[in-house]
Amino acid sequence: MYKFVIDMMGSDNGPKGLIKAIDEFSKIHQDIFFYLVGKVDEFDVFKDRENFKLIQADDVISMDDNPIASLKRNESSMIKAIKTYKEEKADCIISAGSTGAYLTAATFLVGRIKGIKRPGLVTPFPTMIKNKSVVLLDIGANNLNTVEELVQFAFMGRVYTKYVLGIENPKSYLLSNGTEDHKGTNLIQDTNKKLREIKFENFVGNIEGRHVLDGEADLVITDGFSGNLFLKTCEGVFGIVSKLLKQGFKKNLKTKMGYLLSHSVIDNIKETFNYKKVGAAMLLGIDGYVIKAHGNSDFEGFTGALNVSLSSVKNQINTKIKEELNISDESR
Amino acid sequence: MYKFVIDMMGSDNGPKGLIKAIDEFSKIHQDIFFYLVGKVDEFDVFKDRENFKLIQADDVISMDDNPIASLKRNESSMIKAIKTYKEEKADCIISAGSTGAYLTAATFLVGRIKGIKRPGLVTPFPTMIKNKSVVLLDIGANNLNTVEELVQFAFMGRVYTKYVLGIENPKSYLLSNGTEDHKGTNLIQDTNKKLREIKFENFVGNIEGRHVLDGEADLVITDGFSGNLFLKTCEGVFGIVSKLLKQGFKKNLKTKMGYLLSHSVIDNIKETFNYKKVGAAMLLGIDGYVIKAHGNSDFEGFTGALNVSLSSVKNQINTKIKEELNISDESR
Repeated sequence: MYKFVIDMMGSDNGPKGLIKAIDEFSKIHQDIFFYLVGKVDEFDVFKDRENFKLIQADDVISMDDNPIASLKRNESSMIKAIKTYKEEKADCIISAGSTGAYLTAATFLVGRIKGIKRPGLVTPFPTMIKNKSVVLLDIGANNLNTVEELVQFAFMGRVYTKYVLGIENPKSYLLSNGTEDHKGTNLIQDTNKKLREIKFENFVGNIEGRHVLDGEADLVITDGFSGNLFLKTCEGVFGIVSKLLKQGFKKNLKTKMGYLLSHSVIDNIKETFNYKKVGAAMLLGIDGYVIKAHGNSDFEGFTGALNVSLSSVKNQINTKIKEELNISDESR
Repeated sequence: MYKFVIDMMGSDNGPKGLIKAIDEFSKIHQDIFFYLVGKVDEFDVFKDRENFKLIQADDVISMDDNPIASLKRNESSMIKAIKTYKEEKADCIISAGSTGAYLTAATFLVGRIKGIKRPGLVTPFPTMIKNKSVVLLDIGANNLNTVEELVQFAFMGRVYTKYVLGIENPKSYLLSNGTEDHKGTNLIQDTNKKLREIKFENFVGNIEGRHVLDGEADLVITDGFSGNLFLKTCEGVFGIVSKLLKQGFKKNLKTKMGYLLSHSVIDNIKETFNYKKVGAAMLLGIDGYVIKAHGNSDFEGFTGALNVSLSSVKNQINTKIKEELNISDESR
């Protein structure tokens, strides 16, 4: 039986969407035991349910709270959830709360995989080719990274892509401002050189932001600041196009009729690039299964988060990473 | 009479689009004298035209050539054009050639405005609000920047936004991975602090990639690597949506009819986010009017470049920057 610990208070939208997602998910997966942490009043529908334990936490860490200071807030749902995860030897923990606080708390309380310098947030992105994803990391756990950290992201990302997405030999790239090896910041130039030097498997070279979603790349390595910029810019542009289409089709009778005939086209694109469906990123490099759900998780988003969690746990990503790192340690 | 110097060989698409753009532009603006530099055979339609001088250059600098080494290629169209610009005391120079080589050559041969550490590429971007642009710099002249350079970008960008876009008191932002002042790399955090400290006029704070094109910001400051990543990611996503729409509407009779009724909606979005129409960025901080046209300039793109050039020259941006910097030098 798997054990899932869930911080119920992290989402900007409150626990409502989480409750519905957990309810449906628990009915499909009856081999999971849930520890739900937070203001129990707000999710007491699970009170007498089998395979559920509700744990009261009075405090909630907000997006603006200082990550280091948050560590001491033992009565907060996030910290209490992480501690429950450890005490109960659970399989994974999920929170939609502040990335900074979560990363800090996970690093201090759960710890990193031996040898890993910094954890990175990893997530699969939809691409323009249907049902083909590209894995990106780090998408925002770090502000600044070193060459060594980026190389570790490459190794961890490769394992993730192989086992979670099932791609045998992922085509791997480094996010830069030009495809040539000498393009990019010093960090990117040096990382490119290092990946060439160690003959990182199937490392193709640099990729520009405009080609990440083409469906050609399986894995894209980036520092956390750039990865986060990429993620948010994509979200922004898709949002704008979506809004303008909506406004445009409402314009007059002709465009409204046009919409009726062709909305499948628009729906299809929206569905393809529905970031909410993914819903979660894993903190890769932490010696545990620590999943960060989207800050404004709703039913759809949190269902995605639960699925990502189960898939990471079932595939035992961390065990594979440790194996891989031993091999790579020797080759370096 | 204005004097324009044009490197005719820089575009990936060859000089054809440039020729058409210059031809039409010269008919509208009869107060401009053109020096066209390159393989004269390829644009000899202008041979006997009034207000034109054709200058032969046998060599062409390519995108892959080393910028520093390119400096010595006196027979290349780019270097010869820059030298012509200086010798003829022309008003501006335009090239679609390699950004790196152009930046290096302009810095060495034309020189920076006194006190400016690094030039930055500046360009207005379309936003989701019709006819409202947002100015971004640097979009790719630099790989790494310092706080001082970013603060200088802010001052230069403000002048550009004021005089080229006619916005009296531009709402200014710093591109980061969160809106709070403490978010971002050390560079971004320190630049935010500095801009607050010197009370940079109408500095609102940080902006995330997802909100840059909302139409709220007038000016967004960024280092060259992040700016370039933002630019190319936007281009990429718009390109993907555009391709998927095209494919989708072709699917069956129903969607084809839908397209006939509602293509105005799609055309409108495409027109709004038509990057080619802008077509050019100015190298702000160089003591001259050095305009970089898009690497794959065609008729539309190069017409945009000619218009941007004329507008920068007419507005005497550099004179205004020098005035502004004197003021700001005292205030610091």
